Amino acid sequence: LNIAAPIKLSAPNLMTVMAIRQHGVLSRSNIAEQIGYSNAKITGVVNDLIEQNILLEMDEAKSSGGRRARYVGFNPDFGYIVTINIGVTKLELALIDFGENIRIRRMLPINIKDGPETILTEICSFILDRIQQLKIPLEKIFAFVATLPGAIDSETQTPFETPLMPTWAGYQIENHLSQAFPYAVIQIENDANALAFGELRKGIAQEVKNFIYVKVGTTISAGIIINGKIYRGANGRAGDIGQMYVEAINFEGEVAEIIPLNLIASGAAIAQQAREAVENNYDTLLTEYELAEITAREVGQIAAKGDEFANQIIQQSGEVIGKSIANIVNFLDPELILIGGSVSNIGRQFLASIRRSILERSPALTTHNLRIEQATLASEASTLGAMALALESVFVLDE
Amino acid sequence: LNIAAPIKLSAPNLMTVMAIRQHGVLSRSNIAEQIGYSNAKITGVVNDLIEQNILLEMDEAKSSGGRRARYVGFNPDFGYIVTINIGVTKLELALIDFGENIRIRRMLPINIKDGPETILTEICSFILDRIQQLKIPLEKIFAFVATLPGAIDSETQTPFETPLMPTWAGYQIENHLSQAFPYAVIQIENDANALAFGELRKGIAQEVKNFIYVKVGTTISAGIIINGKIYRGANGRAGDIGQMYVEAINFEGEVAEIIPLNLIASGAAIAQQAREAVENNYDTLLTEYELAEITAREVGQIAAKGDEFANQIIQQSGEVIGKSIANIVNFLDPELILIGGSVSNIGRQFLASIRRSILERSPALTTHNLRIEQATLASEASTLGAMALALESVFVLDE
Repeated sequence: LNIAAPIKLSAPNLMTVMAIRQHGVLSRSNIAEQIGYSNAKITGVVNDLIEQNILLEMDEAKSSGGRRARYVGFNPDFGYIVTINIGVTKLELALIDFGENIRIRRMLPINIKDGPETILTEICSFILDRIQQLKIPLEKIFAFVATLPGAIDSETQTPFETPLMPTWAGYQIENHLSQAFPYAVIQIENDANALAFGELRKGIAQEVKNFIYVKVGTTISAGIIINGKIYRGANGRAGDIGQMYVEAINFEGEVAEIIPLNLIASGAAIAQQAREAVENNYDTLLTEYELAEITAREVGQIAAKGDEFANQIIQQSGEVIGKSIANIVNFLDPELILIGGSVSNIGRQFLASIRRSILERSPALTTHNLRIEQATLASEASTLGAMALALESVFVLDE
Repeated sequence: LNIAAPIKLSAPNLMTVMAIRQHGVLSRSNIAEQIGYSNAKITGVVNDLIEQNILLEMDEAKSSGGRRARYVGFNPDFGYIVTINIGVTKLELALIDFGENIRIRRMLPINIKDGPETILTEICSFILDRIQQLKIPLEKIFAFVATLPGAIDSETQTPFETPLMPTWAGYQIENHLSQAFPYAVIQIENDANALAFGELRKGIAQEVKNFIYVKVGTTISAGIIINGKIYRGANGRAGDIGQMYVEAINFEGEVAEIIPLNLIASGAAIAQQAREAVENNYDTLLTEYELAEITAREVGQIAAKGDEFANQIIQQSGEVIGKSIANIVNFLDPELILIGGSVSNIGRQFLASIRRSILERSPALTTHNLRIEQATLASEASTLGAMALALESVFVLDE
């Protein structure tokens, strides 16, 4: 059987597949209700999809009443997807079956500056080894999603130039991956977009049509969901909020300068401020560390011990991020703002400062229904986001 | 014939109507090409729409070659729409037929603080008089669009509270209008949204999917088009960019304060700065005017005479508007920014300053394809925007 994804399905078959993807398992009459076809029609559709090995009878006990109903769900072994979430210093990879079971999950240390050729070659051969061990035929890898900490050019599907990953600009990742995984639909996505999409499909934002996922890591960027879809902008550069200008306030409470958000509130900026304090011998427990050890994480740990200076850095970062988000709120009037990324766990006062700044700088009429929340999927978020994207790329409408 | 809009049409009929709305007149084979049906099918559809009096044979000469082709277009007398664009000091009204001919167009002075009850009662009786004189039956007024200089609550379809129009908050405009025009689909829309929609359908933005229309008038707001549709936000408050914070620079080039854009760059702020200069006897030709006479327009006129102070005010306004738009550009990565509203014509240096600020504060990779243009429809923009909205509300899919 030589199946090359994407797999074309008729409209009722595709709608059935999507309904089951959304709900996990469903009875035939659940499906009929969900998508508005008759029970007879759905029986035919489900039989067809079972014959194609896409769906399986699940026959599980109904929780209410105990009456047994015949459920159908995805056949886990129909196919598999691979996700890789490329970061600056680490790469997360996952092999996931069609039942959404994570079959392999690994975190590998990398240096993104080694460049795409080296990193992708190594990761592909690692994955190919594992799927051979699991006796999964290459034809069954239907989708491969790679996320990157930078924007992807909409026209060429290659990374834009960025200081974080200088050697990746213009590299044809898709070509590289499709040589190793010739049967897979390949997608390259910005990491904040994938995080937002994960929350939309698997997290806290499942009922939300318009929201922003603000990723605070080494740099600050946003994934934007508008009308239930990732919004990428004209060039693929939407969400580049680390470039938004905001005022830096000095310790006297005066405006020191107007600078890009990344330079004052990102993980890199937090670490930089801490290192400067240590160099200048400020009265802070941060001096316990060697300069080279200090990242945003250490600032969080010292702040948790009650260190005033470390707390001030974190609070200021939250404040200026909140000020920038307030401008977005006034512009976009979203339903929900999610704060995620490694720095978002730096301390409770971080989210509180963000919230306070947003509320201070937006009219109450705009914010009275606005939710400002910590992202929920935590360390699984990147994998789940990429998985959700991958699963939706496998089946398409046969037109 | 008792037709209450919206009028339900089958899918091919609706698609035909939309294609003709977009192109003005079309031959039957043009329509077939446009919407992907066979010529035979379209012949049936067109005959059906002609029988319903919606379309008319136009039989006009084909410009190329001189061969005559049979064209169809809208029957102008099939129906009419009314648009009113409510401003703070004036109201524009138009009666437009289905051939998009403007049959009545009037500009009436109003004071928006007189409140909705008084203003709408007067305007409705004015329009009802005129359509009676034209012998147009009330049943043929299929749509009525009113635009307002403020946000409309998505939930209640009533205006939000705003200092510009204090007595309008929560008023059921729709109820009021539908009592006078019982056969019409009523729509209430924010004016910047209608301006943006006008440029999308009739102006410079016809091929553009994602753009922002920045309206600089007494206050500053934006109409947002995303994926070819008006984006209104969770509460209907999207585009409230006059609330975005930006730095005010004093004449020494230092940051004086961080304040909402409306308070430093709007028409009201420009006039206020000019009045302060006159009161303080600055060296400026603005002193020729009485204090009460000075609006943004007078500042523009004096600037055109080479007055340095007046020019400085205008340039600063453009600069800070550009800084705010730069933040939007980094966030949204749009294809096009349109600058409109009464203040946008204040002087050539205004648009130039906006452009310069945007380019200074956004990465070249984001702006290299970005167009920043003066809106094109000028004084007709509000009417055309409201008309375009109205025409699209009359026919709906019969499901």
